[in-house]
Amino acid sequence: MKMNPRCTYCLLSRVHFQSKLSTDDEDLISKTIKECLEVVTRNYSPDAVSASVATKVHRKCYEVLEDNDPYAVTKKLINQAALKVLPAAKEKIYENSPDNGELFRRAVLASVVANYFDFGIMGFDASEDKFEAAFREYFENGLDVDDTPKMLGLMQDVVYIADNCGEILFDMLVFDIIKKLGGKITLVVRGEPILTDVTLEEVREFEIDKKVDRVMTTGSNAVGVLIEEAPAELLQAMKDATLIISKGMANYETLSEHNFGPIAYMLLTKCECVAEDLGLEQGLSIAKLMNCP
Amino acid sequence: MKMNPRCTYCLLSRVHFQSKLSTDDEDLISKTIKECLEVVTRNYSPDAVSASVATKVHRKCYEVLEDNDPYAVTKKLINQAALKVLPAAKEKIYENSPDNGELFRRAVLASVVANYFDFGIMGFDASEDKFEAAFREYFENGLDVDDTPKMLGLMQDVVYIADNCGEILFDMLVFDIIKKLGGKITLVVRGEPILTDVTLEEVREFEIDKKVDRVMTTGSNAVGVLIEEAPAELLQAMKDATLIISKGMANYETLSEHNFGPIAYMLLTKCECVAEDLGLEQGLSIAKLMNCP
Repeated sequence: MKMNPRCTYCLLSRVHFQSKLSTDDEDLISKTIKECLEVVTRNYSPDAVSASVATKVHRKCYEVLEDNDPYAVTKKLINQAALKVLPAAKEKIYENSPDNGELFRRAVLASVVANYFDFGIMGFDASEDKFEAAFREYFENGLDVDDTPKMLGLMQDVVYIADNCGEILFDMLVFDIIKKLGGKITLVVRGEPILTDVTLEEVREFEIDKKVDRVMTTGSNAVGVLIEEAPAELLQAMKDATLIISKGMANYETLSEHNFGPIAYMLLTKCECVAEDLGLEQGLSIAKLMNCP
Repeated sequence: MKMNPRCTYCLLSRVHFQSKLSTDDEDLISKTIKECLEVVTRNYSPDAVSASVATKVHRKCYEVLEDNDPYAVTKKLINQAALKVLPAAKEKIYENSPDNGELFRRAVLASVVANYFDFGIMGFDASEDKFEAAFREYFENGLDVDDTPKMLGLMQDVVYIADNCGEILFDMLVFDIIKKLGGKITLVVRGEPILTDVTLEEVREFEIDKKVDRVMTTGSNAVGVLIEEAPAELLQAMKDATLIISKGMANYETLSEHNFGPIAYMLLTKCECVAEDLGLEQGLSIAKLMNCP
């Protein structure tokens, strides 16, 4: 996905937000804004890939802050909040013993809804009570784009590219169904901390590796999957996959520039630009299969 | 008022907004964003005056767009919508024949509430029904900071620095009371079109000059009142005034850097940074007298 004018100020707003998470030093925050402004100005172009520019901006931000993980505490809070809602989600998915197709649809829906809960980022009030109520509301609404039936025959070798903390615990419910359907799962997480994204630390903490067949990383702290920085084994796994599942917006922003497939983009269209790029409205829950021969 | 990190992306968001008002040409919008990013980057500093940087950014924006008034149509719509609510506001102000002090307070309140209605700018839905309902709600709430009683004895020679279109029609209700109190009014509007601010065009259209003793301009299209660009007669009038009334945020951002007084800032704290600079919460209706010996 290419950069939109809107990305410029959205990025700077995020830089400001995470700088305040990292420090109370106003001078340091100003310096960070100034240096990131320079990176945005140097790289802004309607032909640039949005997430590639975001990677450059966030790297500069982390460098100036001398903080390689401004969201360290936030991520713990997100996971705690997600854990509290997980039993209710599980109940919803398995309610009235649905068939495998319906089971998969529901688990995907739960994991897409969990993509909403970027706690502390979108100004969302992360109190657990609200989280559960909002989760139920979005779950009731269902998937606005639902290509899950077409995915059922593609489960032999799934590469599952994770997005945020919190959300990953709901992804594990999808893993259960893929395994039930006889599929193999390669889970992909970020190589180093970036934003609230899942890394190997959460894989270890929640023993996620026991739910999947193998775990790989994107090879770096790039926003999304930057092919230039991806390990050869990841590129091979993506080529060999019968289905790539790409969670969240950043993975879409980077992977939509390439021709991997079949690939299912599972996300909430939280951002107007991503929604527009997908030809959809903002605020939808989608599981959209693309590049499927 | 000095620049806050937040001003950087707020300014860029406004540039994008007004570029879309001016043109559908995506390339031109991109070029505008790019050039304005450069201006923000070059001028961003915690020691810079926020509205001075805003002036530089908006001038660059208008220059690249080759449009000296992107809000031309918007301003007409704002005035039309304001005209519809004006009779209800007048009724509220004169209800139950209050004394002069209460009359002045109510007229000031109406003109402060009208500072909210930056139609098309803050994402506010400008349908007239909503405007009227919102006006009534804010009016019922009253002034959160009310120094109007202290102003009553300072009415001999008032310099009234206007802000937005729409709002100016409610300012005229304040003019009526100042005249009733025996005061002289020098109205100050922008020298050239900038944002949705009042210029001599609206003064002529609504015959506002008939309500005041004299009309001056800020001498340029600066955001707020840039002293370096202000005509000598305006500076003299401000020095001679028994009371300066400064409407809206941009006038505050520029004039708070100087020691003119007594000066009454009448505005809604729409922006977190202005609110913080005033030591107040966001979203308040204020009429705050400062630099009063």
